[in-house]
Amino acid sequence: MSRFSFGIIGASGKMGKEIQSVMEDAGHRFVFAYDINQCLQESNPNVLIDFSLPEVLDRTIAYASVFNSPLVIGTTGYTESQSDKIRELSKTIPVVQSYNFSIGIQMLIKCTELLSANLTDWDVEISETHHRFKKDKPSGTAIMLKNAVGKDVNISSLRLGNVPGEHTVSFGGLGEVISLSHSATSRRTFAEGVLKASEFAHRQKEPGLFSFRDVLFTK
Amino acid sequence: MSRFSFGIIGASGKMGKEIQSVMEDAGHRFVFAYDINQCLQESNPNVLIDFSLPEVLDRTIAYASVFNSPLVIGTTGYTESQSDKIRELSKTIPVVQSYNFSIGIQMLIKCTELLSANLTDWDVEISETHHRFKKDKPSGTAIMLKNAVGKDVNISSLRLGNVPGEHTVSFGGLGEVISLSHSATSRRTFAEGVLKASEFAHRQKEPGLFSFRDVLFTK
Amino acid sequence: MSRFSFGIIGASGKMGKEIQSVMEDAGHRFVFAYDINQCLQESNPNVLIDFSLPEVLDRTIAYASVFNSPLVIGTTGYTESQSDKIRELSKTIPVVQSYNFSIGIQMLIKCTELLSANLTDWDVEISETHHRFKKDKPSGTAIMLKNAVGKDVNISSLRLGNVPGEHTVSFGGLGEVISLSHSATSRRTFAEGVLKASEFAHRQKEPGLFSFRDVLFTK
Amino acid sequence: MSRFSFGIIGASGKMGKEIQSVMEDAGHRFVFAYDINQCLQESNPNVLIDFSLPEVLDRTIAYASVFNSPLVIGTTGYTESQSDKIRELSKTIPVVQSYNFSIGIQMLIKCTELLSANLTDWDVEISETHHRFKKDKPSGTAIMLKNAVGKDVNISSLRLGNVPGEHTVSFGGLGEVISLSHSATSRRTFAEGVLKASEFAHRQKEPGLFSFRDVLFTK
Repeated sequence: MSRFSFGIIGASGKMGKEIQSVMEDAGHRFVFAYDINQCLQESNPNVLIDFSLPEVLDRTIAYASVFNSPLVIGTTGYTESQSDKIRELSKTIPVVQSYNFSIGIQMLIKCTELLSANLTDWDVEISETHHRFKKDKPSGTAIMLKNAVGKDVNISSLRLGNVPGEHTVSFGGLGEVISLSHSATSRRTFAEGVLKASEFAHRQKEPGLFSFRDVLFTK
Repeated sequence: MSRFSFGIIGASGKMGKEIQSVMEDAGHRFVFAYDINQCLQESNPNVLIDFSLPEVLDRTIAYASVFNSPLVIGTTGYTESQSDKIRELSKTIPVVQSYNFSIGIQMLIKCTELLSANLTDWDVEISETHHRFKKDKPSGTAIMLKNAVGKDVNISSLRLGNVPGEHTVSFGGLGEVISLSHSATSRRTFAEGVLKASEFAHRQKEPGLFSFRDVLFTK
Repeated sequence: MSRFSFGIIGASGKMGKEIQSVMEDAGHRFVFAYDINQCLQESNPNVLIDFSLPEVLDRTIAYASVFNSPLVIGTTGYTESQSDKIRELSKTIPVVQSYNFSIGIQMLIKCTELLSANLTDWDVEISETHHRFKKDKPSGTAIMLKNAVGKDVNISSLRLGNVPGEHTVSFGGLGEVISLSHSATSRRTFAEGVLKASEFAHRQKEPGLFSFRDVLFTK
Repeated sequence: MSRFSFGIIGASGKMGKEIQSVMEDAGHRFVFAYDINQCLQESNPNVLIDFSLPEVLDRTIAYASVFNSPLVIGTTGYTESQSDKIRELSKTIPVVQSYNFSIGIQMLIKCTELLSANLTDWDVEISETHHRFKKDKPSGTAIMLKNAVGKDVNISSLRLGNVPGEHTVSFGGLGEVISLSHSATSRRTFAEGVLKASEFAHRQKEPGLFSFRDVLFTK
């Protein structure tokens, strides 16, 4: 696999630091950082990564245009008009955008779709467990799983200690139950997803808007 | 262990049949049955068991008084005044009454109390999974577990296929989670609880009102 | 869906009775039974089902040839030369053969293959729990799951009470774990698989040897 | 609760740092550190904690004697003669020694003993899951659990990704299964156990050798 240089917008955040570490471990070079605290620019990066805040978007777009580099976006909370800007940008460069860069969750979604398509008359239940500090119920990932099921299903939300995150989709037929569970044990797993997304983005020869799913399942 | 004779009120119901089978397997003799369909009386039973309906209570009390035998009651749905009658009866004979004769659930309650007493600042979540045909949420057993926790906790109810019954109590601290789970796989387990309750009742020398918990944990 | 008539070889066995019940519930007509205890023949069946013993195979083949009906085989333990005979038979009529007619297990295998193909550098662990009376370790289904993983993985076998059967395949990456679990709660689920296999066999216009997987996933 | 001063032998290790942080968060004062890298002594500590290496023991004993302070030991790997020295020391000061300061695991052991004493004819299975880097099978904690069961039971060891540590004890009767599970999500949980042990040690008025279990369950 070819090595390339990368930059991070939001470099000093928790995810930013983790991404830098994982990308460097994979042999890629950290050459650009933009942040509330800093602006380092050793050279133009081959790939730009944004894990920051929605209000930074215009600057992110400006940088990506100047660098003419693929962009990977993990920032959440964009308005509709901001999403339009990202779509516009993706006509000129490859853009990978996702709300969840965990490979395991994407695989869980894939399995959920497979079972939902084949076990149409089974009951489905989703449950998610997160740390007590998480205020929103249900989790965004649980909603993604519900969308994968494709019908209205019950979501149970449990809040326990400092559990990083667990999601289970259970299918019940008369006489058997299948449960698909995902459990996150560290933030590192998301950074590794960003690494894969960056490598995918760097390989693209054409502009386009890609999901993390495209990253994982496009041959 | 000494063998004894027993009778069942509600003998032809699903639980009645299962109880008869388990009691006979243990060497006890089936000598009396009362039912909407039948009234068999070979001899007076040493222990009387009632798994029937609330409206039969007066007759059950009459039989127990005539036989002067200990009584085990698994029937549910008594009114307050009926409960008073049972309490009154227990002044003259030993009565064991419970809504759940599963040994495992009683042990789960015991463990739940132990953890609740020692992990007072941990989060607690209860979840229960039953077959799709169960209409009430949450299950009665989940409520018993909540009482064992001793504070107001969230109960998640899942309905899946034909799951006989699963209950989980999870305790979450900062850095660790303990989960206690019980899963029923057949009705037989409840009949075995009734067997234990009958043997306990038969051993009692004094009248009194006992719970299934007394059966299991009294030396 | 069109209704048809069916026959069962091994009709008075536990699976035979369950299959008859499920097939009749679906509107199909029971017109033929062959057994150590009986031979009932109301008319020639449209589909023949064999859940018996290996030594009956020659007779099964003879009947299927006479009836010129599709055959569904759930009997296990055939010798290699017997398997050859089945393969030969499948050149003249549609034959569905499987060691496991649980739809859920087939879906679990499908998900296992999906994850194994996409998470090649993750660790994989298989575990299975069955009742204490099961002597063989690991279960045949666990071996099927291992084959689905496609590499040599550890299988843990637990023996507990009268658990009908649970299988779990866990995938562990750095930072996340995915677990796929299947739990059987009754024999009925296998009979429902046989129903699907019979309907599939009845729809086939050409001879051929089919797996239960073909039944589920062929459009 | 009264605040006190404490010292750590092995202060710059991973556990040492975590312990310092948790103890300070609880309001206790860090006044002494001994280490391969340092020796800080602001004043004599009220409680001394040792999370270091076996070869440091003589120095630990010397410090504890000089300070005349209770001692909490989490270091593992002592020889028999070193254990004798610790026992000797405990005749003059309170000493708390344990191989596992997780409160949850102690509670799991307590529940395991409770079930083992009451469900003597049930099957028992222990399983443990740890990260792929853990070489020993089974884990020390699984062996503690086996001792709590009090009979020879099977232990299944799974190795997956970077799972910090999960232990499950399952009890299976005919018709029901109870599972007790513990899952660790961070090292912090062990430091909190050391905090409790320190507070317990500080409260002791008499010398003695105590386990972490005494810390949790002594009134």
